[in-house]
Amino acid sequence: MIGKTTWAIPEGYIPGQSTGEGRALESHETISVLNPNDQDARMELTIFFADREPAGPYALTVPARRTRHFRFNDLSDPEPVPRDTDYASLLRSDVPVVAQHTRLDSRQPALALLSTIAFSE
Amino acid sequence: MIGKTTWAIPEGYIPGQSTGEGRALESHETISVLNPNDQDARMELTIFFADREPAGPYALTVPARRTRHFRFNDLSDPEPVPRDTDYASLLRSDVPVVAQHTRLDSRQPALALLSTIAFSE
Amino acid sequence: MIGKTTWAIPEGYIPGQSTGEGRALESHETISVLNPNDQDARMELTIFFADREPAGPYALTVPARRTRHFRFNDLSDPEPVPRDTDYASLLRSDVPVVAQHTRLDSRQPALALLSTIAFSE
Amino acid sequence: MIGKTTWAIPEGYIPGQSTGEGRALESHETISVLNPNDQDARMELTIFFADREPAGPYALTVPARRTRHFRFNDLSDPEPVPRDTDYASLLRSDVPVVAQHTRLDSRQPALALLSTIAFSE
Repeated sequence: MIGKTTWAIPEGYIPGQSTGEGRALESHETISVLNPNDQDARMELTIFFADREPAGPYALTVPARRTRHFRFNDLSDPEPVPRDTDYASLLRSDVPVVAQHTRLDSRQPALALLSTIAFSE
Repeated sequence: MIGKTTWAIPEGYIPGQSTGEGRALESHETISVLNPNDQDARMELTIFFADREPAGPYALTVPARRTRHFRFNDLSDPEPVPRDTDYASLLRSDVPVVAQHTRLDSRQPALALLSTIAFSE
Repeated sequence: MIGKTTWAIPEGYIPGQSTGEGRALESHETISVLNPNDQDARMELTIFFADREPAGPYALTVPARRTRHFRFNDLSDPEPVPRDTDYASLLRSDVPVVAQHTRLDSRQPALALLSTIAFSE
Repeated sequence: MIGKTTWAIPEGYIPGQSTGEGRALESHETISVLNPNDQDARMELTIFFADREPAGPYALTVPARRTRHFRFNDLSDPEPVPRDTDYASLLRSDVPVVAQHTRLDSRQPALALLSTIAFSE
């Protein structure tokens, strides 16, 4: 099987403002997960902060031979991710997957992007 | 030989709109492959989606001591990659290579860029 | 425990100019550190330059189950990091952590972003 | 010693146009190299292309406990790197170092950035 079962993303920040129109250009952060294997992946995402105990776990699933691009903006159970706040995230999966982190920032009229493969173990 | 034979890129999204002029500034995603070795690399690229079976394999080649920057926009056989759609990709090569993922996004008048070395095994 | 104890970031450059309003949009570089483990992390950051001996060490701490996003702009003890100057950084921690590097560049009216997981050993 | 002796960057492209003023905002690509060790690093950089034999080697040096951010735009011996042309690069060092790749793109009035730690072996 391809991938790893533990993925960490130290950088996290959802800008509270957007100038873009529509969901596609709203400021957001994403964890994109690829499950190229033949077994469904059940995952737990934990969100870390500077000054409080972690939030979560958030339950996520990526079926076999599928990809899901999860927006941190959309997480709600057990609680939403606060805007304009530094956070970090840790993903644990029961089968190997691959994870990448992306931010689309549209606080100003021209959007900005960042992305990196997450740290794996 | 330098490199790895399996490369994964969980993030994939070709914006359907562009404001730039010409091919260079058209919104696009690229997998850049370096083959620094003395043997040609024959590769298969598979595209994964959220809600359907994977597309491909797409046959790609990078000759010995060459680099090729493949645009996902240009893939057509066996089928084109849909725009404005989340996808992921997996590259398998018969000899070791190195792969990097880049997006140029010109949906707005100012372009944005992201790039990362892909995940390797 | 998750992570590594040595992290290196070759790229470093704090633009001396900003057009954004407020601290959030001021040009800055950040090292985001996640400590997902149950033991506080005590770290030393060293800054390298092109033409002089390294600066530091700067003492940093990330408590257990917390993240801290340190701005290079804010470092002052033993000395501030000069603007408009190439530098690099090396982080050593007494317990495993995960580190990511980000720059927000607002020299021009539209901000630009870069980010990458740091190199670990 | 910290680092690796072989670093690969598949993505390479120096935009032929710039709108920024001065050297800092000219479109450029950089390989930032950190040598945190106590021995000078003597390196050879090779540039790969799509349709011709590689260029180089370019001789580079980073003294002990120093960083150097080399612009591909500035390489001239044995030949300059062509603009608006896809390339890739491979760095070999006699002692371990750490390498990161960055592009500042100012083809449009708002600059864009990308960066990633290079692939190491």
